[in-house]
Amino acid sequence: MHRPWRPNGIVTFASDYGMEDNYVAQVKGAMLSRSRTLTIVDVTHSIPPQDVWEGAFQLATAWSSFPPGTVHLAVVDPGVGTERRAVALLADEHLFVLPDNGLATLVLAEARSLAAWMLDRDDLFRHPVSATFHGRDLFGPVAAALAAGLAPDQVGTPIDPAGLQRLPIPAVERTADSVRGPIVSIDRFGNARTLIRRDQLPGAPHELVVECGPLRLAGIRRTFADVAPGEPVAYIGSHGGLEIAVRDRNAARTWQLHRGMIVEVRQPHR
Amino acid sequence: MHRPWRPNGIVTFASDYGMEDNYVAQVKGAMLSRSRTLTIVDVTHSIPPQDVWEGAFQLATAWSSFPPGTVHLAVVDPGVGTERRAVALLADEHLFVLPDNGLATLVLAEARSLAAWMLDRDDLFRHPVSATFHGRDLFGPVAAALAAGLAPDQVGTPIDPAGLQRLPIPAVERTADSVRGPIVSIDRFGNARTLIRRDQLPGAPHELVVECGPLRLAGIRRTFADVAPGEPVAYIGSHGGLEIAVRDRNAARTWQLHRGMIVEVRQPHR
Amino acid sequence: MHRPWRPNGIVTFASDYGMEDNYVAQVKGAMLSRSRTLTIVDVTHSIPPQDVWEGAFQLATAWSSFPPGTVHLAVVDPGVGTERRAVALLADEHLFVLPDNGLATLVLAEARSLAAWMLDRDDLFRHPVSATFHGRDLFGPVAAALAAGLAPDQVGTPIDPAGLQRLPIPAVERTADSVRGPIVSIDRFGNARTLIRRDQLPGAPHELVVECGPLRLAGIRRTFADVAPGEPVAYIGSHGGLEIAVRDRNAARTWQLHRGMIVEVRQPHR
Repeated sequence: MHRPWRPNGIVTFASDYGMEDNYVAQVKGAMLSRSRTLTIVDVTHSIPPQDVWEGAFQLATAWSSFPPGTVHLAVVDPGVGTERRAVALLADEHLFVLPDNGLATLVLAEARSLAAWMLDRDDLFRHPVSATFHGRDLFGPVAAALAAGLAPDQVGTPIDPAGLQRLPIPAVERTADSVRGPIVSIDRFGNARTLIRRDQLPGAPHELVVECGPLRLAGIRRTFADVAPGEPVAYIGSHGGLEIAVRDRNAARTWQLHRGMIVEVRQPHR
Repeated sequence: MHRPWRPNGIVTFASDYGMEDNYVAQVKGAMLSRSRTLTIVDVTHSIPPQDVWEGAFQLATAWSSFPPGTVHLAVVDPGVGTERRAVALLADEHLFVLPDNGLATLVLAEARSLAAWMLDRDDLFRHPVSATFHGRDLFGPVAAALAAGLAPDQVGTPIDPAGLQRLPIPAVERTADSVRGPIVSIDRFGNARTLIRRDQLPGAPHELVVECGPLRLAGIRRTFADVAPGEPVAYIGSHGGLEIAVRDRNAARTWQLHRGMIVEVRQPHR
Repeated sequence: MHRPWRPNGIVTFASDYGMEDNYVAQVKGAMLSRSRTLTIVDVTHSIPPQDVWEGAFQLATAWSSFPPGTVHLAVVDPGVGTERRAVALLADEHLFVLPDNGLATLVLAEARSLAAWMLDRDDLFRHPVSATFHGRDLFGPVAAALAAGLAPDQVGTPIDPAGLQRLPIPAVERTADSVRGPIVSIDRFGNARTLIRRDQLPGAPHELVVECGPLRLAGIRRTFADVAPGEPVAYIGSHGGLEIAVRDRNAARTWQLHRGMIVEVRQPHR
């Protein structure tokens, strides 16, 4: 059973709209037109244009910092104006409002309880609905209505969460003495993040070897502050996965790390 | 007659201050010092330094997404500290607080009802008033006071809206079988936007030819999703004017589009 | 005696987290999880990674625009996960929550009254406390608790403000007929800012000579609008110190100005 959904009035907002233009503001205006008392929090609007995977990662690593009852609006939408569905997804007392294009991939993989609806109630939208700006005219208004108290089952037709689009999640592959997975995102500091979790490590962290391209690290540390400035280091990052950094430097630039490169963690005796 | 002005407590804020520095925060601090309960929404602060036209475009395409009763603070102010006037402008139940330097050009062109005041009530300002930062010391405090309930006619001397500064609006020129106008703004996605409205098109959209520099497009579509990835396309953008994009790519970079380039839409038979 | 601390519910937030990632949002989520009614204002998140001095400057020039009772959260924290202290600092009716690494240097230099506490109350933190993200797990939750009404002396052990870390403040050196000091920060417009105050000038502003690298300026003006477009100019900036700009241009790029370059102001007769 779901615990009952009780909105707390917060809407988070992630998109690829950038902050150079006023698209983000237009969406907020449309939301505040529905409810004056929302608290709207920007997750990021710097997702590379139409990079659905990066959007999925940003969403997955942000939502759990917010209290239950939060609505999460996410718009990276290369298929705007096509037949891709617009959906609301209730997952563990958080509501996600987004296009059904894989943005929810990691939320779907992690949630314990799921329910979903197709956003097909035309009277909830802002009219006229633009063919290119559903953030303002469709997703935003519905997110605002939900945060203001509209029951999730009032936004449209119930659908099976199992049928929602999912991106392939980069595989984390394990053997008896190793685990391998790709870099899935690189942050502002140049830190390279994987989905390799602590409980997947093949041994005691300080004894393991981490390799990625030309980089070979002895031991997984607690934090980058455990090495000297300029030194590379691996640790479990705040997103919950293995992360590679260089203390006080940009690891991605220093070591030419990029999304998709494989990180291998293994026992030293081989 | 104007409908009565009733502030809703929202202040939108557009500027060329950037987000790298704390200028935007200082303005917000000055506003919140006047009223703790404002809802302040950033429109954009990435207007190129002192680019009044881009500011006018950002303002014109943002304000109507907000509910009536919103105060719109806009500061792109190369003449700060000179004799340029500071004004409040009531237009169609929205209030604009800005320097009188052309920032309101497109709002003035579109509004059905107008009234204006010169901001000459010294006691409303933050003191000492800096010679270089009227956003914090003059415009911000007045915008906050208006959003908190001060009547517009209490901010200063009434002036004739017809006397407000206007930038030349790039002309949209029509003949019997064509319409021409320049690109007026390019967004984060590289989409190039004009002021050519749907009702100015010289025929049925799908039959028309769109030309811009080396680009020749057959037909105006509903959205960029109507063409294949990598293909250029023209459609009526969410700002209400003709827009040129490349699906899943950056049109401005791909086709060297820039502000000022002429877009021509014409019937194919010539 | 201190005047009593009365929180106004505003939290300002400065960091080097950038806006490309969702770190800022995660901190806000952690804060809103403590108190739903906070008003959170971004100061800037574009401080260059781990540039504590720039953080100290941004903090020092932002806080006084906010009303008394504001909590200022600042996180530039190269020592996260080490033994550096986390502290709360009450200065002139404003509360600062930050790592004890010099971020408060300029606040400490300016405040008339000071009191400080070490943040050692584990039950106020978000658990588990990440070794690399104290903004979300430690500073943010404590800042939220303070803004929501927790008394400052409830956050931890009182400490002597005299023992807080301070960065060396770039010296402003005076002689009978001159004053010299370095550029301490360059803003988005390319304006170069010093800590030379008006009351330190060696004579009447319009009679003085300002020199910096290849640049020689006759007279300190009121604002950049007092010279022709393209001309360099010196004036007392909105931050309260001498500033060098080029009207309608980027002074730093035009004249190769950078942080650390010495600006000298002197009487012309020598």
